[in-house]
Amino acid sequence: MITLTSDFGLKDPYVAEMKGVILTINPKATLIDITHEVEKFNIRMAAFMLASATRYFPQGTIHLAVVDPGVGTQRRAILIQTKKSFFVGPDNGILILAAQNQGIEHIYQLTNPKLMLPQISSTFHGRDIFAPATAYLDKGVRPSEFGPEINDPINPEFAIIKRTNSSLIGEIMHIDGFGNIITNLNEKDIPQKYAKIVNVELPDISLKLNFGKTYAQAKFKEPIALIGSHGFLEIGLNQGNAAEKFHVKAGDNIVVTAA
Amino acid sequence: MITLTSDFGLKDPYVAEMKGVILTINPKATLIDITHEVEKFNIRMAAFMLASATRYFPQGTIHLAVVDPGVGTQRRAILIQTKKSFFVGPDNGILILAAQNQGIEHIYQLTNPKLMLPQISSTFHGRDIFAPATAYLDKGVRPSEFGPEINDPINPEFAIIKRTNSSLIGEIMHIDGFGNIITNLNEKDIPQKYAKIVNVELPDISLKLNFGKTYAQAKFKEPIALIGSHGFLEIGLNQGNAAEKFHVKAGDNIVVTAA
Amino acid sequence: MITLTSDFGLKDPYVAEMKGVILTINPKATLIDITHEVEKFNIRMAAFMLASATRYFPQGTIHLAVVDPGVGTQRRAILIQTKKSFFVGPDNGILILAAQNQGIEHIYQLTNPKLMLPQISSTFHGRDIFAPATAYLDKGVRPSEFGPEINDPINPEFAIIKRTNSSLIGEIMHIDGFGNIITNLNEKDIPQKYAKIVNVELPDISLKLNFGKTYAQAKFKEPIALIGSHGFLEIGLNQGNAAEKFHVKAGDNIVVTAA
Repeated sequence: MITLTSDFGLKDPYVAEMKGVILTINPKATLIDITHEVEKFNIRMAAFMLASATRYFPQGTIHLAVVDPGVGTQRRAILIQTKKSFFVGPDNGILILAAQNQGIEHIYQLTNPKLMLPQISSTFHGRDIFAPATAYLDKGVRPSEFGPEINDPINPEFAIIKRTNSSLIGEIMHIDGFGNIITNLNEKDIPQKYAKIVNVELPDISLKLNFGKTYAQAKFKEPIALIGSHGFLEIGLNQGNAAEKFHVKAGDNIVVTAA
Repeated sequence: MITLTSDFGLKDPYVAEMKGVILTINPKATLIDITHEVEKFNIRMAAFMLASATRYFPQGTIHLAVVDPGVGTQRRAILIQTKKSFFVGPDNGILILAAQNQGIEHIYQLTNPKLMLPQISSTFHGRDIFAPATAYLDKGVRPSEFGPEINDPINPEFAIIKRTNSSLIGEIMHIDGFGNIITNLNEKDIPQKYAKIVNVELPDISLKLNFGKTYAQAKFKEPIALIGSHGFLEIGLNQGNAAEKFHVKAGDNIVVTAA
Repeated sequence: MITLTSDFGLKDPYVAEMKGVILTINPKATLIDITHEVEKFNIRMAAFMLASATRYFPQGTIHLAVVDPGVGTQRRAILIQTKKSFFVGPDNGILILAAQNQGIEHIYQLTNPKLMLPQISSTFHGRDIFAPATAYLDKGVRPSEFGPEINDPINPEFAIIKRTNSSLIGEIMHIDGFGNIITNLNEKDIPQKYAKIVNVELPDISLKLNFGKTYAQAKFKEPIALIGSHGFLEIGLNQGNAAEKFHVKAGDNIVVTAA
């Protein structure tokens, strides 16, 4: 099974061309779209979508993700093998958050020209490099045949959780349609001692919040912290817009401390 | 075969998460999207899309539909077995119109926790309850294993046709992109005596209309009634916008009488 | 394998109804969307998308394409057999450019009512004629069983390349999101002598351009000609909007001469 994530949109034929390449190599592939409506060049948003959705796919699924502002430059093409599945895409951070959540085992650079299209355009590696890699992997080609193992993938800020004795320092990944503030801190990152009340520092404000289960546990328009349905720590208001109220945006830092 | 209908849009990973859950339980499932661009929380529009599209799917198809403003409240989750197929979704009326058209046989409440995800969020039953139910049903689990049979589903206004000796009283389901007025009265609802000319009462106006086959049978900008390609009675103008001309909107009543 | 292209959008249930019809006739069909976001009634744009994407699909794929402003009139429904695959849709030019690129072998008019739905609406031949034709073809029905062979398909301006001793006269097919000017001249149309420098006449301006490989080979904001990732001759600026600078739009003529 193969999933596809990109910023190509559904108007142009780019997604279809990737699927055509995959199905030409492996006509039996099952293809599922995660989203192709990632904001253009927004690697953080794509990484968040990927990390959220890939929790629900079966063992062995191959996840192709292409948001690729560096296409045509020296940025590497990579394949990540995790404890649960595989990720294929540019080495720009898009894959790391989702892969880390599953436990990274090996990372290979895609350099073997036999596992690419014969002609490589300088603008569309999704079709010419990543789609064929995905299809050959799905067909049974071993990860190590795609190229050399590497140990220094690009590790974006949003995939790094800093820990002090008392605090977790993370980043805001996404503001959802309701104004909820979704961070990069996942359930496993958060120690037991954060069980009931947490101190949260945002750029403009410090908050002491209940750590609850649902937004409905807060009073009307009051804030609460919880692990949301994406699997990450969220700060939201009961029936209100937390991002507006606290003046935050994706990319801002957040510090969380046990109260 | 499984179809999916929702108001989740294609930007966020929600639809992909439902598909991942289904394919984890049943990797052989065939998944077809009806639409995920239903207006947010617009149950009537979703019911219309579902009733229109499901006429064309094979015997035995399972239709998952989630427009769910009541998620997290006491509204029930249900499975409807019809003479032709199955419907899974919230008990808020979204399924009833399509299911009625096929002939409802049994309705079960989804209460069996073994046929749900282990963790149920309070905001996303599409992924945590409806997707697993759909997948297990597709895998062969019998409808009665999901929970108790019920006889009192929510029956929305738009699924109820009132009949008097001389008239049918229905509702406007949808205004399409051309301004055609699409009702909830389907071909089977309409007796033979309506064959040629019908009287139509809309909130602001009464019309005496030919009951035709195509909009082209009307004079330029003149109205006509016909059974449209969605399978429902429509009122439209030849090359004009009927909804604007007659000041109607989805949800308005319509009374149809044989002339 | 079957691909689908249309101007139906993803909001309405039209695409799903076509898929339902196909899967009812042939439950084993594999369905891939090229795009359903073609501008309403824009046959040229659909033809371009189809020609671009179909290069990447396997031998034997069936391509269904429906942008059909003439539905309900006398325009014919056709099936084109090429050296590589099959095309099904209205006889209005939408299929010709893609089919020509593969080498047209036979064209049949779809007239056999046994290979259509029992009821044919006057507005939705995508569902009632083209979808069943596609499904039966995929199931193994021979092309000649659909109707008589024809030799006079509608040949749109944009599918005709005029050649003089010294020049190629083509048309602008599409302006992409970056303002690059994409023509209908494909790699095979362009003789060897065009290898390095080309003269290009657009409606408002004549240009002498390097014929390169990537936009990065031009100086900042300077124009260059190249075969783009769609397989057609493009004129673009390095990091600039060529269509705006040269005041051109889809449908304009372009004359290319070896320098």
